[in-house]
Amino acid sequence: MSLTTTFLGTAGSIPTPERSLPAILIQRENEQVMFDCGEGVQRQMIKAKTGFHKKMKIFITHMHGDHVLGLPGLLQTMALLDRKRKLEIYGPVGVKSFLECTRETVQFVLTFPIELFEIKTAGIICDEKEYTVQAAWANHVIPSFAYVFTEKTRPGHFYPAKAKKLGVPEGPLWSRLQDGQEVIVPHGRVVKPEEVLGKPRLGRKIVYTGDARSVKNLVRFGANADLLIYDSTLDDSLADKAEEDGHSTPSQAARAARKMGAKLLVLTHISARYPENDLLLKQAQRIFKNTIVAEDFMKIEIPFPED
Amino acid sequence: MSLTTTFLGTAGSIPTPERSLPAILIQRENEQVMFDCGEGVQRQMIKAKTGFHKKMKIFITHMHGDHVLGLPGLLQTMALLDRKRKLEIYGPVGVKSFLECTRETVQFVLTFPIELFEIKTAGIICDEKEYTVQAAWANHVIPSFAYVFTEKTRPGHFYPAKAKKLGVPEGPLWSRLQDGQEVIVPHGRVVKPEEVLGKPRLGRKIVYTGDARSVKNLVRFGANADLLIYDSTLDDSLADKAEEDGHSTPSQAARAARKMGAKLLVLTHISARYPENDLLLKQAQRIFKNTIVAEDFMKIEIPFPED
Repeated sequence: MSLTTTFLGTAGSIPTPERSLPAILIQRENEQVMFDCGEGVQRQMIKAKTGFHKKMKIFITHMHGDHVLGLPGLLQTMALLDRKRKLEIYGPVGVKSFLECTRETVQFVLTFPIELFEIKTAGIICDEKEYTVQAAWANHVIPSFAYVFTEKTRPGHFYPAKAKKLGVPEGPLWSRLQDGQEVIVPHGRVVKPEEVLGKPRLGRKIVYTGDARSVKNLVRFGANADLLIYDSTLDDSLADKAEEDGHSTPSQAARAARKMGAKLLVLTHISARYPENDLLLKQAQRIFKNTIVAEDFMKIEIPFPED
Repeated sequence: MSLTTTFLGTAGSIPTPERSLPAILIQRENEQVMFDCGEGVQRQMIKAKTGFHKKMKIFITHMHGDHVLGLPGLLQTMALLDRKRKLEIYGPVGVKSFLECTRETVQFVLTFPIELFEIKTAGIICDEKEYTVQAAWANHVIPSFAYVFTEKTRPGHFYPAKAKKLGVPEGPLWSRLQDGQEVIVPHGRVVKPEEVLGKPRLGRKIVYTGDARSVKNLVRFGANADLLIYDSTLDDSLADKAEEDGHSTPSQAARAARKMGAKLLVLTHISARYPENDLLLKQAQRIFKNTIVAEDFMKIEIPFPED
């Protein structure tokens, strides 16, 4: 089951020739989960060849323009391309009136249904068969969420040889064992799933802070992330300004990554004042070695631990 | 007096990797006039190094998203960069409520005043000391304007030798002659400006159709354009679809250019179905030789005829 994160936009509040405004696309098999939807996202999707017809959910962290102004144009292009499939949009209070008023004043007709969820409290906001998305309050200058995408734990690998040895005939009983249920074999013995399955396979976890000061509540929420995507708008020397503007620095991101036990830290929301990544990277890597600075169109694949 | 037109976005309704959404920037000395403001325009301006602080007027042709969705992000970036100078925005009815509702729902604080003009009738909508902008109804699927930027006629070159010969002493009388006024020289003789000036210098004229079917009313309006920028969304073989969608084809644009006596025809609003320009160019050049197909960041300088 492939799980790819594509950075469609990695700029801070103002784009640069190299960085478009914030948008991150997680693709899990044929399904897409987008975090933030900055201006220009539709063109970035075209460049990254992501398609506009897939099953898709969009999660907006907060209602600052650089994180949300790509939404109307994306919807218009989907409609022009005759998308039929429902689109789910999640965001803080305000996203509904933003979408309604742009649809009223900029004339376009949707060809597909939108299901809109205004998030009012932290917690699991989206519970799918194979994954959840959870929101936590981030500490920014306006109400803002951090999001965690977590795959659910799946039963371990099924070993047919073990099942046969225990007398379980091939067929429906095998499926029930694979689903984690006990079965009774013809001789009357109970076979438990753990007798024929490997250990349960933990899902993968992607954490995105959105715009956020680096505060404690994110640590537990983002624990053991395979991929931790962290606001790193300004470098350490501008920590005071970062604090004032509701952002983080590389060192703060790196300390959080260490506390969270993250596997990989990606710094994003990079201010236009840094045409090179070196400084930000150096500041973070002093504390957390496995750090990279996001760039537009960068792709990160997370393998299953057991695969 | 330099006059440069920069094509910031040349796509049809959907952007492509090569073409951003519609926006055309005329720069006359230190003043900017923008026609349309499609999504991504702020990043295109950054790439083209146009600056965000100059005296500027924006003219929106119509309220389709691909022509207007770049406006909120542009305003936000101007505010983040602490613009102080007033920005003038002209557009059809609807542009005001669009801007108001995005400013209410997407939170940002402007640092500069906006003067907003909703155009309700065709005619001269902006009359500056040295130029005018005129609007004409275009024939599209929703109310839409075409715009003409016209420099005013300036007095001809002043010839000091002629003035001296006629006994006009250097000083204030020269200025009055240069401004086109008669003066009386010390001996009592009246000197007329045409005795010391070359012929009046006609201003330059740039015509932009916006999205438009090719109809007659544009011809008189756009007569003798130095630069005629014309909707050419679809090629000739799709003329029926162009008609239905309210657009034009290369042949239609070329015929209009010939009728208008244009000096140069630029085809724009190019559908994503044309990765190459050859077909559109060929269809237009059969009728009007001096045609080019717009590309993003293309710049066209129009010299003064007499310079």
